[in-house]
Amino acid sequence: MTAFRVRNPHYEARARASFERQNFLQMMGAKLVLLEPGAADLEIKHRDDLMQQHGYYHAGVSATLADTAAGYAGLALFPADRGVLTSEFKINLLNPAQGEKLIARGRVIKSGRTLTICRSDVFAQTGGEEIHVATCLVTLMAVEGVEG
Amino acid sequence: MTAFRVRNPHYEARARASFERQNFLQMMGAKLVLLEPGAADLEIKHRDDLMQQHGYYHAGVSATLADTAAGYAGLALFPADRGVLTSEFKINLLNPAQGEKLIARGRVIKSGRTLTICRSDVFAQTGGEEIHVATCLVTLMAVEGVEG
Amino acid sequence: MTAFRVRNPHYEARARASFERQNFLQMMGAKLVLLEPGAADLEIKHRDDLMQQHGYYHAGVSATLADTAAGYAGLALFPADRGVLTSEFKINLLNPAQGEKLIARGRVIKSGRTLTICRSDVFAQTGGEEIHVATCLVTLMAVEGVEG
Amino acid sequence: MTAFRVRNPHYEARARASFERQNFLQMMGAKLVLLEPGAADLEIKHRDDLMQQHGYYHAGVSATLADTAAGYAGLALFPADRGVLTSEFKINLLNPAQGEKLIARGRVIKSGRTLTICRSDVFAQTGGEEIHVATCLVTLMAVEGVEG
Repeated sequence: MTAFRVRNPHYEARARASFERQNFLQMMGAKLVLLEPGAADLEIKHRDDLMQQHGYYHAGVSATLADTAAGYAGLALFPADRGVLTSEFKINLLNPAQGEKLIARGRVIKSGRTLTICRSDVFAQTGGEEIHVATCLVTLMAVEGVEG
Repeated sequence: MTAFRVRNPHYEARARASFERQNFLQMMGAKLVLLEPGAADLEIKHRDDLMQQHGYYHAGVSATLADTAAGYAGLALFPADRGVLTSEFKINLLNPAQGEKLIARGRVIKSGRTLTICRSDVFAQTGGEEIHVATCLVTLMAVEGVEG
Repeated sequence: MTAFRVRNPHYEARARASFERQNFLQMMGAKLVLLEPGAADLEIKHRDDLMQQHGYYHAGVSATLADTAAGYAGLALFPADRGVLTSEFKINLLNPAQGEKLIARGRVIKSGRTLTICRSDVFAQTGGEEIHVATCLVTLMAVEGVEG
Repeated sequence: MTAFRVRNPHYEARARASFERQNFLQMMGAKLVLLEPGAADLEIKHRDDLMQQHGYYHAGVSATLADTAAGYAGLALFPADRGVLTSEFKINLLNPAQGEKLIARGRVIKSGRTLTICRSDVFAQTGGEEIHVATCLVTLMAVEGVEG
């Protein structure tokens, strides 16, 4: 993987403070379990109220985790005066999302001044086994005057 | 708009029963407010726990509504022995999602035997005013032996 | 459709000059048949060397036309000192692309300072009949110091 | 990388025969330079008539190569009685596409009975140096009664 240049030494504190203010993710029980320059992992535990009609995690849960993991992977590379907005994302659902946990791994592919492109992959975990349930491409925008 | 052929006269009862089993949507407070062959609208009211760090509806909320509205627009055209799965979707976020309500309007563009392609547009409503906050393309798959 | 603000009165001359410099489109025989603020149509006539292995227009031909129609729809709204780059696009192929002509209609959905979001629909025409063969969402970026 | 099951021992002859019938790719001068179960690489040499208005390879060229590389990566896994159609793809353009050659590497992520999901990455090569110019997600459909 490419080494990225860190423009804000306080990137981790900033990202964790931002994550705390994400009510939707707090409500879903998501945790930010890894944060490095250009990489972030999110995790969520099985809960009945995250499921769709066939008993799998709702595609919206996978999408929320994938988008957010990409967002923090990118934000970790932003200068302190720029916040992050998602411009667009695309998700392919590969397998039914069932298991004890859902893990989204966001990775920066291209870090630009205005746009940052990430890949985000979502895995369902049961015991030590992982199934690849979704893959996602995300475009982030760095916006001046916006908090983390 | 194209007129679509209805293959299941009980499409509405089926879709409403399926919607009731969607725990994630129930938990978010989403309502299925319109259902016609090839069209479905979902609505959600402002709640603090649906927001992201800047106080807007989380992109995951828009994505969940857009995907689900498309799903029911398509399911309404499926024969009774086929259920619906989302294969993939892509969402462009157009404007900050803020307002009293979020409304997603799913419409079938192409109804095929195996794949159904939909557009889904998300609007934020305050008073009578609407802002276009997201546009989405969704591919649905008709799967035998799967409930609604 | 929304009315858009024109920031460059010479948008048409600029777009046509840019189109002339697009070698790939010239080689394919594409024509820019409509240009308005926020809208552009491209057309191409059937030629055996535009086809794929089953005798339909190659998906790459549809994608090229869809992307480019979106690009000129957006460029028509840009100020004179900003050029256009495609950031990303997504295309759904709806029906086999066969017929005398292929027409792509690009329309701006959201015109922003940095990013412009467009829809582009591709139709195959034979006689007066049109078949909808593809639908596309495109993100354009306005870049300083880049020609049209 | 996952090992894939080969369902057609003649996959290579089939893919090469199909590629020969792709007029659009022949006209562009594309070569199929690698073919394995679940993987295909396409290459194209710099030619002035593949460029856009700023002197880079047209995004449509990158898209055509990326889509096609994915198609042959997937087709190599199909049984002999099923042909391949692209259902949809999404491409993010990462860097200006300039250089002596353009190379698209298509890889299967998920091989299903009906749908196959691929990633395709495009690189511009000059001397031994490669720049990552585009990344793409592609959904292929296996269709009965369709040639390769």
